[in-house]
Amino acid sequence: MALSMHDASVPVFRQMLASLADVLHKAQAHAEERKIEPDALLQMRLSPDMFPLVRQVQIACDFAKGVSARLAGVEVPSYEDTERTFDELQARIARTREFIEGLDASAFEGSEGRDVVLRPGTPKERRLDGRTYLVHYGLPQFFFHVTTAYGLLRHGGVPIGKKDFMGQY
Amino acid sequence: MALSMHDASVPVFRQMLASLADVLHKAQAHAEERKIEPDALLQMRLSPDMFPLVRQVQIACDFAKGVSARLAGVEVPSYEDTERTFDELQARIARTREFIEGLDASAFEGSEGRDVVLRPGTPKERRLDGRTYLVHYGLPQFFFHVTTAYGLLRHGGVPIGKKDFMGQY
Repeated sequence: MALSMHDASVPVFRQMLASLADVLHKAQAHAEERKIEPDALLQMRLSPDMFPLVRQVQIACDFAKGVSARLAGVEVPSYEDTERTFDELQARIARTREFIEGLDASAFEGSEGRDVVLRPGTPKERRLDGRTYLVHYGLPQFFFHVTTAYGLLRHGGVPIGKKDFMGQY
Repeated sequence: MALSMHDASVPVFRQMLASLADVLHKAQAHAEERKIEPDALLQMRLSPDMFPLVRQVQIACDFAKGVSARLAGVEVPSYEDTERTFDELQARIARTREFIEGLDASAFEGSEGRDVVLRPGTPKERRLDGRTYLVHYGLPQFFFHVTTAYGLLRHGGVPIGKKDFMGQY
């Protein structure tokens, strides 16, 4: 046993949320410089039936806070999905980072064996042990949304690269 | 300590490589049905300076085998990047899965403290302990390429959804 449940969650979310904030800052600066309407980026989608950039960022934050809270055994904070600007997305990312960094690492101990219930009370309810929940559900979902946000910005011509995606490690 | 280094690597790669194989099968079937030239999908890029789909799949496989081999302390198998068709990409994914599933889980023990050297012998050489290498480098890189492959197929109109991306967990 080499990794704590905290090791494989909060610091990973922190790294990628910081890089997400960074690429969004670069996207905002690019839009200002080129006189691009911010919504031209914020409302971009890879496909008409996929979520736009703004929602990808919201959901990335939701997985970071949801997974961290559930593993720590605390209530998941509820954020309204009202962001419409780059500044508001930055505030959501900052709030999410503040929340997850404020969790006590010791609260994650034992979470590998505690059950987490997905979509409780719905026909799609699913019970997973904490280990499965983190590595087979939470991390793939989180990375899906941060990568899709990055891909949208690359597709939209924002001058960023893989190094920006990876952030500080 | 709740997760072994093996828990957080091989089974995650296996899950996502299986889902990658599945979405590529669906893409191939879609191309055949609509009489779409396979290269119209295989050579798609989200941006002219990003890699095309075929390369995204190759690199996803490379991270899966490279990270797993380095953590297990065995030589990283070298694959030539010659794939040009959906069938050849399936073969590469299958070969990668066979390799990582053949590694002995016990060989991963202690890898959290063993150093891994990135880009050895180059000006960008970087030494990371195994724990940092896996959760802050290997997993983000791997997920980047599987998610980008999925995003390209969605952008190309292939009828797949998030459930296909997540695979079996």
